[in-house]
Amino acid sequence: MSRISSLFNNGDPFVSLMNKCPVLSTPVDWKETPEAHVFIADIPGLKKEDVKVEIDEDRVLHLRGVRKVEQVYEENEKWHRVERKRGKFARTFRLPENAKVDDVKASVENGVLTVTVAKQEVKKPEAKVIEIEEK
Amino acid sequence: MSRISSLFNNGDPFVSLMNKCPVLSTPVDWKETPEAHVFIADIPGLKKEDVKVEIDEDRVLHLRGVRKVEQVYEENEKWHRVERKRGKFARTFRLPENAKVDDVKASVENGVLTVTVAKQEVKKPEAKVIEIEEK
Repeated sequence: MSRISSLFNNGDPFVSLMNKCPVLSTPVDWKETPEAHVFIADIPGLKKEDVKVEIDEDRVLHLRGVRKVEQVYEENEKWHRVERKRGKFARTFRLPENAKVDDVKASVENGVLTVTVAKQEVKKPEAKVIEIEEK
Repeated sequence: MSRISSLFNNGDPFVSLMNKCPVLSTPVDWKETPEAHVFIADIPGLKKEDVKVEIDEDRVLHLRGVRKVEQVYEENEKWHRVERKRGKFARTFRLPENAKVDDVKASVENGVLTVTVAKQEVKKPEAKVIEIEEK
């Protein structure tokens, strides 16, 4: 384990907790407009190639990535504070029935990931009237 | 208070706590190299014009800014989750004696603020030998 990881994992328990909690590590807003479901995630320092956005066969949206840890510890460097999150992150959201899972756009700007899933009309099954026999 | 703020403030107490805590709200790494003190802060979604970096007369470094809250609540929008931080943030760090407070650089990239304060040699006061009188 590098000195940085060791600093991070064995350091402040509060910071360690923060890193383990998915909500604290990668907070996400989820807004539904008339046209789409919009997911907005904070991923400071990451570029589009560092993130993977996927919708699986169960209509679950996965946001995954890795915040790279400085692997090389320079002997002449001193870390006074290590608060920023490192390592893997993952968030999942089950998409509702009105999400059009084949119409999805994603972009990264200023360390913020935005995923827009278009909506579709959900056909309500028609009420089926059961005929009552008269006896 | 807008509906969004109200959602945010009166919603999940865990998320509310996160927003109030400066470390959780704006985590900062502080690394000292042979040449400089480097402060790295996560400020996703913010551009350079949204952040203020200042060193006061007491050699305290201030990092300040505002994460803008969506002020207009659209009647036809529904917020399923509101986890991302909003509002003002501020972090302060007292710079050590070897920091050259008039040689500072700051930049923002991918939602990460980097402030580099050059180092200077600190002259140690020479030990003063007190002559002992012989009586």
